Amino acid sequence: MSQKAFQDYYPDHLSYCYGCGRLNEHGLRIKSYWDGDQTVCTFTPATYHTAVPGYVYGGLIASLIDCHSTGSAAAAAYRAEGRAMDSEPPRRFLTAALSVNYLRPTPIKEPLELRSTIREIKGRKVVVVTDLMVDGVVCAQGEVVAVQFPEDMLR
Amino acid sequence: MSQKAFQDYYPDHLSYCYGCGRLNEHGLRIKSYWDGDQTVCTFTPATYHTAVPGYVYGGLIASLIDCHSTGSAAAAAYRAEGRAMDSEPPRRFLTAALSVNYLRPTPIKEPLELRSTIREIKGRKVVVVTDLMVDGVVCAQGEVVAVQFPEDMLR
Repeated sequence: MSQKAFQDYYPDHLSYCYGCGRLNEHGLRIKSYWDGDQTVCTFTPATYHTAVPGYVYGGLIASLIDCHSTGSAAAAAYRAEGRAMDSEPPRRFLTAALSVNYLRPTPIKEPLELRSTIREIKGRKVVVVTDLMVDGVVCAQGEVVAVQFPEDMLR
Repeated sequence: MSQKAFQDYYPDHLSYCYGCGRLNEHGLRIKSYWDGDQTVCTFTPATYHTAVPGYVYGGLIASLIDCHSTGSAAAAAYRAEGRAMDSEPPRRFLTAALSVNYLRPTPIKEPLELRSTIREIKGRKVVVVTDLMVDGVVCAQGEVVAVQFPEDMLR
Protein backbone atom coordinates (compact mmCIF):
# COMPACT_ATOMS: atom_id res chain seq x y z
CA MET A 1 0.00 0.00 0.00
CA SER A 2 1.44 3.40 -0.91
CA GLN A 3 -0.70 5.13 1.74
CA LYS A 4 1.12 6.07 4.96
CA ALA A 5 0.16 3.93 7.97
CA PHE A 6 -1.03 5.46 11.26
CA GLN A 7 2.15 4.20 12.91
CA ASP A 8 4.33 6.00 10.37
CA TYR A 9 3.19 9.29 11.92
CA TYR A 10 4.40 8.41 15.42
CA PRO A 11 7.41 10.49 16.46
CA ASP A 12 10.71 8.59 16.62
CA HIS A 13 10.93 8.47 20.42
CA LEU A 14 7.48 6.81 20.56
CA SER A 15 8.28 4.31 17.79
CA TYR A 16 9.91 1.58 19.86
CA CYS A 17 6.72 -0.19 20.95
CA TYR A 18 7.08 -3.97 20.58
CA GLY A 19 3.73 -4.19 18.81
CA CYS A 20 3.71 -1.18 16.53
CA GLY A 21 6.98 0.74 16.73
CA ARG A 22 8.58 0.98 13.29
CA LEU A 23 12.00 1.30 15.00
CA ASN A 24 11.71 -1.83 17.21
CA GLU A 25 13.63 -4.38 15.18
CA HIS A 26 12.48 -7.28 17.42
CA GLY A 27 8.82 -6.24 17.32
CA LEU A 28 5.71 -6.95 15.27
CA ARG A 29 5.74 -3.57 13.46
CA ILE A 30 2.07 -3.64 12.54
CA LYS A 31 0.61 -1.13 10.08
CA SER A 32 -2.93 0.23 10.27
CA TYR A 33 -4.98 2.16 7.71
CA TRP A 34 -8.41 3.66 7.18
CA ASP A 35 -10.88 1.79 4.98
CA GLY A 36 -13.89 4.08 4.92
CA ASP A 37 -15.11 4.39 8.51
CA GLN A 38 -13.26 1.26 9.60
CA THR A 39 -9.58 0.70 10.25
CA VAL A 40 -7.72 -2.35 8.97
CA CYS A 41 -4.47 -4.15 9.63
CA THR A 42 -3.16 -7.39 8.16
CA PHE A 43 -0.48 -9.47 9.80
CA THR A 44 1.13 -12.77 8.88
CA PRO A 45 2.23 -14.69 11.99
CA ALA A 46 5.61 -16.42 12.11
CA THR A 47 5.57 -20.22 12.44
CA TYR A 48 6.66 -19.84 16.06
CA HIS A 49 3.63 -17.66 16.91
CA THR A 50 1.78 -20.86 17.67
CA ALA A 51 -0.29 -22.14 20.59
CA VAL A 52 -1.55 -25.64 19.88
CA PRO A 53 0.22 -26.75 16.66
CA GLY A 54 -1.52 -25.25 13.62
CA TYR A 55 -3.16 -22.39 15.49
CA VAL A 56 -2.19 -18.83 16.34
CA TYR A 57 -1.05 -17.92 19.84
CA GLY A 58 -3.79 -16.03 21.72
CA GLY A 59 -1.30 -13.60 23.22
CA LEU A 60 -0.28 -12.53 19.71
CA ILE A 61 -3.95 -11.94 18.88
CA ALA A 62 -4.32 -9.80 22.02
CA SER A 63 -1.15 -7.88 21.10
CA LEU A 64 -2.35 -7.14 17.57
CA ILE A 65 -5.76 -5.99 18.81
CA ASP A 66 -4.06 -3.81 21.43
CA CYS A 67 -1.74 -1.89 19.10
CA HIS A 68 -4.10 -1.70 16.14
CA SER A 69 -6.71 -0.22 18.49
CA THR A 70 -4.50 2.46 20.03
CA GLY A 71 -3.39 3.43 16.52
CA SER A 72 -7.01 3.52 15.39
CA ALA A 73 -7.94 5.64 18.42
CA ALA A 74 -5.29 8.19 17.47
CA ALA A 75 -6.42 8.26 13.85
CA ALA A 76 -10.03 8.70 14.97
CA ALA A 77 -9.12 11.56 17.29
CA TYR A 78 -7.40 13.46 14.45
CA ARG A 79 -10.28 12.74 12.09
CA ALA A 80 -12.82 13.95 14.69
CA GLU A 81 -10.85 17.21 14.91
CA GLY A 82 -10.67 17.47 11.11
CA ARG A 83 -6.86 17.42 11.14
CA ALA A 84 -4.08 15.44 9.46
CA MET A 85 -2.08 12.99 11.61
CA ASP A 86 1.08 15.05 11.24
CA SER A 87 -0.53 18.26 12.51
CA GLU A 88 -0.10 19.74 16.00
CA PRO A 89 -0.90 19.07 18.79
CA PRO A 90 -0.09 15.33 18.70
CA ARG A 91 -2.63 12.74 19.78
CA ARG A 92 -1.42 9.39 21.07
CA PHE A 93 -3.22 6.75 23.13
CA LEU A 94 -2.52 4.20 25.85
CA THR A 95 -4.59 1.09 26.55
CA ALA A 96 -6.63 1.35 29.74
CA ALA A 97 -8.54 -1.90 29.22
CA LEU A 98 -8.38 -4.76 26.73
CA SER A 99 -10.75 -7.67 26.32
CA VAL A 100 -10.66 -10.48 23.80
CA ASN A 101 -13.16 -13.24 23.13
CA TYR A 102 -11.62 -16.20 21.34
CA LEU A 103 -14.49 -17.59 19.29
CA ARG A 104 -12.62 -20.42 17.57
CA PRO A 105 -9.03 -21.59 17.07
CA THR A 106 -7.29 -19.26 14.58
CA PRO A 107 -5.46 -21.18 11.83
CA ILE A 108 -1.87 -20.07 11.39
CA LYS A 109 -1.61 -20.72 7.67
CA GLU A 110 -3.24 -17.47 6.45
CA PRO A 111 -2.72 -13.74 7.04
CA LEU A 112 -4.83 -12.33 9.87
CA GLU A 113 -7.08 -9.38 9.08
CA LEU A 114 -8.11 -6.99 11.83
CA ARG A 115 -11.05 -4.74 11.07
CA SER A 116 -12.09 -2.16 13.65
CA THR A 117 -14.92 0.24 14.31
CA ILE A 118 -14.70 3.34 16.49
CA ARG A 119 -17.55 2.79 18.93
CA GLU A 120 -17.14 5.96 21.00
CA ILE A 121 -15.05 9.12 21.29
CA LYS A 122 -15.62 10.96 24.53
CA GLY A 123 -13.18 13.46 25.98
CA ARG A 124 -9.78 11.78 26.18
CA LYS A 125 -11.24 8.28 25.73
CA VAL A 126 -11.82 6.27 22.55
CA VAL A 127 -13.44 2.81 22.48
CA VAL A 128 -12.44 0.57 19.56
CA VAL A 129 -14.05 -2.80 18.71
CA THR A 130 -12.31 -5.28 16.42
CA ASP A 131 -13.04 -8.42 14.45
CA LEU A 132 -9.99 -10.58 13.80
CA MET A 133 -10.56 -12.74 10.73
CA VAL A 134 -8.87 -15.47 8.76
CA ASP A 135 -10.10 -15.91 5.22
CA GLY A 136 -13.26 -13.96 6.08
CA VAL A 137 -14.15 -15.98 9.20
CA VAL A 138 -14.19 -14.09 12.51
CA CYS A 139 -11.97 -16.02 14.96
CA ALA A 140 -11.68 -13.44 17.76
CA GLN A 141 -13.31 -10.19 18.82
CA GLY A 142 -11.69 -7.47 20.86
CA GLU A 143 -12.56 -4.27 22.66
CA VAL A 144 -10.03 -1.66 23.74
CA VAL A 145 -10.62 1.39 25.89
CA ALA A 146 -7.86 3.76 24.82
CA VAL A 147 -6.99 6.91 26.73
CA GLN A 148 -5.04 9.87 25.43
CA PHE A 149 -1.45 10.22 26.68
CA PRO A 150 -0.75 12.95 29.18
CA GLU A 151 0.76 15.80 27.10
CA ASP A 152 4.06 15.69 29.04
CA MET A 153 4.64 12.06 27.95
CA LEU A 154 4.56 13.12 24.29
CA ARG A 155 7.53 15.46 24.39
CA MET B 1 13.30 -23.39 42.11
CA SER B 2 13.74 -27.16 42.24
CA GLN B 3 9.97 -27.70 42.08
CA LYS B 4 8.62 -28.73 38.66
CA ALA B 5 6.60 -26.00 36.90
CA PHE B 6 3.07 -26.63 35.60
CA GLN B 7 4.38 -26.23 32.05
CA ASP B 8 6.99 -28.96 32.59
CA TYR B 9 4.13 -31.48 32.72
CA TYR B 10 2.77 -30.57 29.28
CA PRO B 11 3.34 -33.35 26.74
CA ASP B 12 5.97 -32.58 24.09
CA HIS B 13 3.50 -32.04 21.22
CA LEU B 14 1.71 -29.36 23.30
CA SER B 15 4.94 -27.65 24.37
CA TYR B 16 5.42 -25.31 21.40
CA CYS B 17 3.15 -22.49 22.60
CA TYR B 18 4.84 -19.11 22.11
CA GLY B 19 3.96 -18.08 25.65
CA CYS B 20 4.59 -21.20 27.69
CA GLY B 21 5.96 -24.01 25.54
CA ARG B 22 9.30 -25.19 26.89
CA LEU B 23 10.22 -26.35 23.36
CA ASN B 24 9.50 -23.03 21.57
CA GLU B 25 12.94 -21.50 21.35
CA HIS B 26 11.56 -18.13 20.17
CA GLY B 27 8.94 -17.96 22.91
CA LEU B 28 8.56 -16.58 26.42
CA ARG B 29 8.78 -20.01 28.14
CA ILE B 30 7.07 -18.89 31.33
CA LYS B 31 7.03 -21.11 34.42
CA SER B 32 4.17 -21.24 36.91
CA TYR B 33 4.01 -22.74 40.40
CA TRP B 34 1.68 -23.14 43.35
CA ASP B 35 2.19 -20.90 46.37
CA GLY B 36 -0.45 -22.10 48.83
CA ASP B 37 -3.81 -21.53 47.16
CA GLN B 38 -2.38 -19.03 44.69
CA THR B 39 -0.28 -19.58 41.59
CA VAL B 40 2.78 -17.48 40.81
CA CYS B 41 5.01 -16.72 37.85
CA THR B 42 7.88 -14.29 37.56
CA PHE B 43 9.14 -12.97 34.25
CA THR B 44 11.86 -10.50 33.36
CA PRO B 45 11.03 -8.63 30.13
CA ALA B 46 13.69 -8.06 27.49
CA THR B 47 14.61 -4.44 26.78
CA TYR B 48 12.70 -4.65 23.49
CA HIS B 49 9.45 -5.64 25.28
CA THR B 50 8.75 -1.95 25.61
CA ALA B 51 5.78 0.29 24.82
CA VAL B 52 6.57 3.89 25.71
CA PRO B 53 10.28 3.95 26.62
CA GLY B 54 10.80 2.69 30.17
CA TYR B 55 7.54 0.77 30.38
CA VAL B 56 6.46 -2.77 29.58
CA TYR B 57 4.47 -3.52 26.42
CA GLY B 58 0.81 -4.17 27.25
CA GLY B 59 0.60 -7.05 24.78
CA LEU B 60 3.36 -8.85 26.69
CA ILE B 61 1.38 -8.35 29.89
CA ALA B 62 -1.71 -9.83 28.21
CA SER B 63 0.37 -12.76 26.93
CA LEU B 64 1.81 -13.54 30.36
CA ILE B 65 -1.62 -13.39 31.99
CA ASP B 66 -3.02 -15.62 29.24
CA CYS B 67 -0.50 -18.47 29.54
CA HIS B 68 -0.05 -18.29 33.30
CA SER B 69 -3.84 -18.54 33.64
CA THR B 70 -4.31 -21.56 31.38
CA GLY B 71 -1.46 -23.29 33.22
CA SER B 72 -3.06 -22.36 36.55
CA ALA B 73 -6.42 -23.66 35.32
CA ALA B 74 -4.85 -27.03 34.50
CA ALA B 75 -3.09 -27.21 37.87
CA ALA B 76 -6.35 -26.33 39.64
CA ALA B 77 -8.27 -29.01 37.74
CA TYR B 78 -5.79 -31.70 38.81
CA ARG B 79 -5.81 -30.43 42.38
CA ALA B 80 -9.62 -30.42 42.47
CA GLU B 81 -9.54 -34.07 41.38
CA GLY B 82 -6.88 -34.88 43.98
CA ARG B 83 -4.40 -36.03 41.32
CA ALA B 84 -0.81 -35.27 40.34
CA MET B 85 -0.24 -33.33 37.09
CA ASP B 86 1.43 -36.31 35.45
CA SER B 87 -1.52 -38.65 36.08
CA GLU B 88 -4.11 -39.72 33.50
CA PRO B 89 -6.36 -38.47 32.00
CA PRO B 90 -4.59 -35.23 30.99
CA ARG B 91 -6.15 -31.82 31.63
CA ARG B 92 -5.22 -28.89 29.43
CA PHE B 93 -6.99 -25.58 28.87
CA LEU B 94 -7.63 -23.04 26.12
CA THR B 95 -8.45 -19.36 26.64
CA ALA B 96 -12.06 -18.55 25.83
CA ALA B 97 -11.93 -14.95 27.09
CA LEU B 98 -9.20 -12.66 28.35
CA SER B 99 -9.54 -9.22 29.91
CA VAL B 100 -6.84 -6.94 31.27
CA ASN B 101 -7.12 -3.65 33.12
CA TYR B 102 -3.95 -1.58 32.92
CA LEU B 103 -3.95 0.35 36.17
CA ARG B 104 -0.66 2.20 35.72
CA PRO B 105 2.39 2.09 33.43
CA THR B 106 4.50 -0.98 34.30
CA PRO B 107 8.19 -0.12 34.73
CA ILE B 108 10.48 -2.36 32.68
CA LYS B 109 13.43 -2.32 35.05
CA GLU B 110 12.20 -5.03 37.48
CA PRO B 111 10.95 -8.62 37.20
CA LEU B 112 7.18 -8.89 36.84
CA GLU B 113 5.34 -11.04 39.36
CA LEU B 114 2.01 -12.61 38.44
CA ARG B 115 -0.08 -13.90 41.32
CA SER B 116 -3.35 -15.64 40.55
CA THR B 117 -6.40 -16.92 42.37
CA ILE B 118 -8.76 -19.62 41.08
CA ARG B 119 -12.11 -17.87 41.25
CA GLU B 120 -14.28 -20.70 39.92
CA ILE B 121 -14.11 -24.29 38.71
CA LYS B 122 -17.32 -25.42 37.04
CA GLY B 123 -17.53 -28.35 34.65
CA ARG B 124 -14.93 -27.83 31.92
CA LYS B 125 -14.46 -24.13 32.80
CA VAL B 126 -12.01 -22.48 35.18
CA VAL B 127 -11.91 -18.73 35.90
CA VAL B 128 -8.55 -17.31 36.97
CA VAL B 129 -7.92 -13.76 38.24
CA THR B 130 -4.44 -12.29 38.33
CA ASP B 131 -2.55 -9.35 39.81
CA LEU B 132 0.55 -8.36 37.87
CA MET B 133 2.98 -6.57 40.15
CA VAL B 134 6.31 -4.80 40.01
CA ASP B 135 8.11 -4.48 43.33
CA GLY B 136 4.85 -5.20 45.16
CA VAL B 137 2.77 -2.60 43.30
CA VAL B 138 -0.16 -3.92 41.24
CA CYS B 139 0.18 -2.49 37.71
CA ALA B 140 -2.38 -4.63 35.85
CA GLN B 141 -5.19 -7.02 36.68
CA GLY B 142 -6.43 -9.82 34.46
CA GLU B 143 -9.23 -12.33 34.21
CA VAL B 144 -9.17 -15.43 32.04
CA VAL B 145 -11.99 -17.83 31.33
CA ALA B 146 -10.21 -21.08 30.49
CA VAL B 147 -11.96 -24.07 28.94
CA GLN B 148 -10.73 -27.63 28.91
CA PHE B 149 -9.39 -28.93 25.60
CA PRO B 150 -11.53 -31.41 23.74
CA GLU B 151 -9.99 -34.82 24.54
CA ASP B 152 -9.17 -35.52 20.88
CA MET B 153 -6.89 -32.43 20.75
CA LEU B 154 -4.75 -33.88 23.55
CA ARG B 155 -3.63 -37.00 21.75
